[in-house]
Amino acid sequence: MTYSVAIAGASGYAGGEILRLLASHPEFEVRTVTAHANAGQPLLAAHPHLRSYAGLTLVDTTVENLRGHDVVFLALPHGKSGELADALSDARLVVDCGADHRLTSGADWERFYRSEWFGSWPYGLPELILGSGGKQRDALAGVNRIAVPGCNVTAVSLALAPGIRAGVIRAADLVAVLAVGPSGAGKSLRTDLLASELLGSAHAYGVGGVHRHVPEIVQNLTLAGGEGVSVSFTPVLVPMARGILATSTARLAPGVGAADVRSAWELAYADEPFVHLLPEGRFPNVSDALGANTALIGLAIDEDAERVVTVTVLDNLVKGTAGAAIQSTNLALGLPETLGLPVNGVAP
Amino acid sequence: MTYSVAIAGASGYAGGEILRLLASHPEFEVRTVTAHANAGQPLLAAHPHLRSYAGLTLVDTTVENLRGHDVVFLALPHGKSGELADALSDARLVVDCGADHRLTSGADWERFYRSEWFGSWPYGLPELILGSGGKQRDALAGVNRIAVPGCNVTAVSLALAPGIRAGVIRAADLVAVLAVGPSGAGKSLRTDLLASELLGSAHAYGVGGVHRHVPEIVQNLTLAGGEGVSVSFTPVLVPMARGILATSTARLAPGVGAADVRSAWELAYADEPFVHLLPEGRFPNVSDALGANTALIGLAIDEDAERVVTVTVLDNLVKGTAGAAIQSTNLALGLPETLGLPVNGVAP
Amino acid sequence: MTYSVAIAGASGYAGGEILRLLASHPEFEVRTVTAHANAGQPLLAAHPHLRSYAGLTLVDTTVENLRGHDVVFLALPHGKSGELADALSDARLVVDCGADHRLTSGADWERFYRSEWFGSWPYGLPELILGSGGKQRDALAGVNRIAVPGCNVTAVSLALAPGIRAGVIRAADLVAVLAVGPSGAGKSLRTDLLASELLGSAHAYGVGGVHRHVPEIVQNLTLAGGEGVSVSFTPVLVPMARGILATSTARLAPGVGAADVRSAWELAYADEPFVHLLPEGRFPNVSDALGANTALIGLAIDEDAERVVTVTVLDNLVKGTAGAAIQSTNLALGLPETLGLPVNGVAP
Amino acid sequence: MTYSVAIAGASGYAGGEILRLLASHPEFEVRTVTAHANAGQPLLAAHPHLRSYAGLTLVDTTVENLRGHDVVFLALPHGKSGELADALSDARLVVDCGADHRLTSGADWERFYRSEWFGSWPYGLPELILGSGGKQRDALAGVNRIAVPGCNVTAVSLALAPGIRAGVIRAADLVAVLAVGPSGAGKSLRTDLLASELLGSAHAYGVGGVHRHVPEIVQNLTLAGGEGVSVSFTPVLVPMARGILATSTARLAPGVGAADVRSAWELAYADEPFVHLLPEGRFPNVSDALGANTALIGLAIDEDAERVVTVTVLDNLVKGTAGAAIQSTNLALGLPETLGLPVNGVAP
Repeated sequence: MTYSVAIAGASGYAGGEILRLLASHPEFEVRTVTAHANAGQPLLAAHPHLRSYAGLTLVDTTVENLRGHDVVFLALPHGKSGELADALSDARLVVDCGADHRLTSGADWERFYRSEWFGSWPYGLPELILGSGGKQRDALAGVNRIAVPGCNVTAVSLALAPGIRAGVIRAADLVAVLAVGPSGAGKSLRTDLLASELLGSAHAYGVGGVHRHVPEIVQNLTLAGGEGVSVSFTPVLVPMARGILATSTARLAPGVGAADVRSAWELAYADEPFVHLLPEGRFPNVSDALGANTALIGLAIDEDAERVVTVTVLDNLVKGTAGAAIQSTNLALGLPETLGLPVNGVAP
Repeated sequence: MTYSVAIAGASGYAGGEILRLLASHPEFEVRTVTAHANAGQPLLAAHPHLRSYAGLTLVDTTVENLRGHDVVFLALPHGKSGELADALSDARLVVDCGADHRLTSGADWERFYRSEWFGSWPYGLPELILGSGGKQRDALAGVNRIAVPGCNVTAVSLALAPGIRAGVIRAADLVAVLAVGPSGAGKSLRTDLLASELLGSAHAYGVGGVHRHVPEIVQNLTLAGGEGVSVSFTPVLVPMARGILATSTARLAPGVGAADVRSAWELAYADEPFVHLLPEGRFPNVSDALGANTALIGLAIDEDAERVVTVTVLDNLVKGTAGAAIQSTNLALGLPETLGLPVNGVAP
Repeated sequence: MTYSVAIAGASGYAGGEILRLLASHPEFEVRTVTAHANAGQPLLAAHPHLRSYAGLTLVDTTVENLRGHDVVFLALPHGKSGELADALSDARLVVDCGADHRLTSGADWERFYRSEWFGSWPYGLPELILGSGGKQRDALAGVNRIAVPGCNVTAVSLALAPGIRAGVIRAADLVAVLAVGPSGAGKSLRTDLLASELLGSAHAYGVGGVHRHVPEIVQNLTLAGGEGVSVSFTPVLVPMARGILATSTARLAPGVGAADVRSAWELAYADEPFVHLLPEGRFPNVSDALGANTALIGLAIDEDAERVVTVTVLDNLVKGTAGAAIQSTNLALGLPETLGLPVNGVAP
Repeated sequence: MTYSVAIAGASGYAGGEILRLLASHPEFEVRTVTAHANAGQPLLAAHPHLRSYAGLTLVDTTVENLRGHDVVFLALPHGKSGELADALSDARLVVDCGADHRLTSGADWERFYRSEWFGSWPYGLPELILGSGGKQRDALAGVNRIAVPGCNVTAVSLALAPGIRAGVIRAADLVAVLAVGPSGAGKSLRTDLLASELLGSAHAYGVGGVHRHVPEIVQNLTLAGGEGVSVSFTPVLVPMARGILATSTARLAPGVGAADVRSAWELAYADEPFVHLLPEGRFPNVSDALGANTALIGLAIDEDAERVVTVTVLDNLVKGTAGAAIQSTNLALGLPETLGLPVNGVAP
């Protein structure tokens, strides 16, 4: 165990998942777990599934409790990380799983989040292909701050970036519709998140472009080389506890052939350990990625509609949050990128 | 009870739902229920939930058993209705819940279904607004053959036809992604339909425009006045037994304002008993429509993406199949259109 | 429409289900719906599935608003009905769907509910067989107060009363374990009722005899002729929105043969419209009863374990609450017992 | 990697789970995976979630293919392991995840399974407390054959053995009712296992003592010191892909106090790495154990009913099958018992 770790917001779903993954990571030792309402309770009271942490107790989320660790993971509601992070200047690495440091445009932040902007941090999506031909992982080596992407954003960005980078799809008029599990919304006590409401049902939310994930998608796909990126984005809550299935479509660029399209994605992800393009005619199940740091992408070309259709699955709590955080942390600390991260899903 | 009824394929999900709805319809008497593998068994063995039919026994699906009824509902796999229907020429009304008589283009039929075409019948989607300004219900009065629409097609067609009719959205480059329950696929014994595979998961099927529902959507939206209709259509199987949530989007026509858009849908459905536009900012839950002959539509305008986004829910077995069949039957026979059809969902 | 109706607590699940069922009842007109936090809102805001009540608005739950109706349904948390009911003395009929007037023993009430006792009312379980050989329905004709049973209690009582009445099973050492949907717990904002917590999971609650449903079961089975009734009762929350599957077992009485056992249940329910014993070797699915006022019972004799095992399904919101309320109301008002009540489940 | 491994029946759910767990086990190298209908396909076609085995291809389940490995796991339908195992005499260890070698009584085998008996093997439930005060793990050191217990049997046996061993509960008249996920039934194409049938529903099966798991439970609890063991056993299929929640109850022995009861379980599992008694008043969620080799037990005493009630959760595919197989394999080979086995559940 080389690095000491603290987790702020450890009683929530994201915090719990960081803990679950760190339990099989050889280089980290979790020393401190903090919470708000649950402070003072054993960690097991909030997360009875985390038996390997039977000795830990939740303490208050304060600067004092978080200071003095090598790595601090922040798993807090948006707007709560900015100030706290400023006070943790001595930490070797601070990893923000919330939204506060994702956007590079202060104007976008203020428009979509209506709170104070604390600046952007290096963005923790290593597989994001850039307009330059490089990958975002190059920007993560040795950093001491990481902004972990939003889970829905990760699914859509990984799905479309290769085609935009290669110029085989248009950056304007993207359409993404996602089936998502409720754990992405956290443990919030809201009527629409009750089991009675969601079992046997489904509903869309944030319809019509007001969704906070839109500027982050635009930012990523612009980094991938897109000009004039625009995306219609609709998440649909469905009755599975975790997981995302994103159907992301784009118009074919003029004169592009089927082989050009497929090879754009093949090239982008050929050597990736966690992101895979499925063979032609195969599309992924959400369960293929559950519990794993894996994203799987199926790809089809709709000749009649002149659109490329991608279907991407990932676990919102792993590749969408905690796994991305640890993968980026490995890169920042110079550890093997895949260390401690599962690639096999828990299925069925 | 004025009309005698036979149901072919009564042991399946569609057949069962026709029976459930007919149980509270005052003008029909179910005399004959037929099946293939289940023939000879009590109806209750196939549908233990249909207690009001405790006395019925399934008989073979033959012309002899189906003849001599006023109304015959066919709930058979595609390709099985055509020949059978020809032999039932004496029936006052034959209602085909399968695909065989939906498409008006024999070429489309052969391309997508790869089997013999038996011609098209009057199309059972009464609320479909036509380019002329009328509705499809006018084409159903007094007919003796009805082709019931596909469930996914109904959701997308109702969602987009008003905008196309009014010219506020473009007919080209529509994108529809649907969360659908597995009952739409029937009782087929396929691995991907097993509970173990779908619980906690989701997967897309028929990705990339090869889906049989596409030509039917194009046909409907062309009837609504669209020119050059094209649609990218992706259904996603999610873990709810029945129900559809369709996210259907279209590009705004140039120079169209928000009020124009909303009023197109308001006008189309203002007086409809079963199809409703929700107030601004409200979007439907699948459970709102479960068990009911209701379709609910939420509408938003995404200014940034320049798209209209509609979210439509309906029960694939009711408004998507059995309810549509009975509603159209009411029209064909000159009965009140809403007779015997529930409007309230079974929620939660 | 002969009778005017008010519903207190109409924004909850039980209130909503009363409304859904009353929509197809020919003798009632819903005039007033009351709520607490939701007062002032359209009913559709709380129950978007109840389209036939689009004109109704929720008003405050006050005596003034509830007075002046022929029939008042109370769908309130326990402890809230007693005082209110006293003030509605002019109503032809008050039907309490809560627990307040179920128990005939004030001591039991105080032990299990720890609040003031307001006395017991005629008990709304018409099919309960009594030690005398009669049924509980005889006690409901013409009454002006009805206490609707608890949903879990209904399942266990209907399952075991016939055997106790006939003396073929022992009244002591009953064991009942129930798989139940979360809607039985209402719309309460509790972490354990979140979709994220229940999807893909299950948990027991009220384990070890402290459950409030126990004295009510004992009361019913004592009425059925049992002496020294005792029951181990464990409800298990499972991921289905509504429904109960109760496995209720009892020791065989000495010297009793298999035929005697089965005929006890056959005789008890032979002529019942809503409660049915399935044929030997058949056991019910929860979905067989969803949305319907039906209870289905499967029965087996375990010779090795010397126990009778019953498996009973019903919809907690219908036969378990709203349907039972309306069935009993029909009896109290001299209407046909089955009027307006569905017998077919909504399946699959 | 010290030991070479073959898995027969690798395309099924049990086989898949063995592979998932072995992926993080340091001492095994999977060389051969066999199947029946799927032979010739890449393993990924059957298990798209097992990305770390992207190179493996399924071959026929033959003696030739299985020979020459140190360890062979058999994950075959019952009746298929016996003959095959005889032909693998050269293997250092054969682990049968099926039922064929579990029962020590040939008469019981023939009564419940109606096929040829191939004798019993050392039983792979290390934590089973024996009448002698030892544990079953002592019987596993160095063995070359292991019979892995049934998943439901494991839940009930672990739940009740401590009380029987300590004499605080009676061995006769046990009652167990289990909520179980459909993956326990394998990938069989049966109508009752379709997602449409199980979503929103539940049903019991094997009701009335004919269940094959009964003699195995009786065998285990007799080993624990019980005399005259009898159990009423009812499994209920509920809509969660995997997992078991077993409510197992027993009559209190005369004169036993609450502290005696609890200490029986505390003593039995105090030092176990995978089986835990929860604190008083706490009961487990199925999700606490999903994906992990953990069993969690909650315990209550029902003074009125004079019964001890235990609630036990485990993952049917892990502690119920594949995890138990690997744990026992570790013991047989002299490896650390916990090697490669997760203790944290995948929740929510």
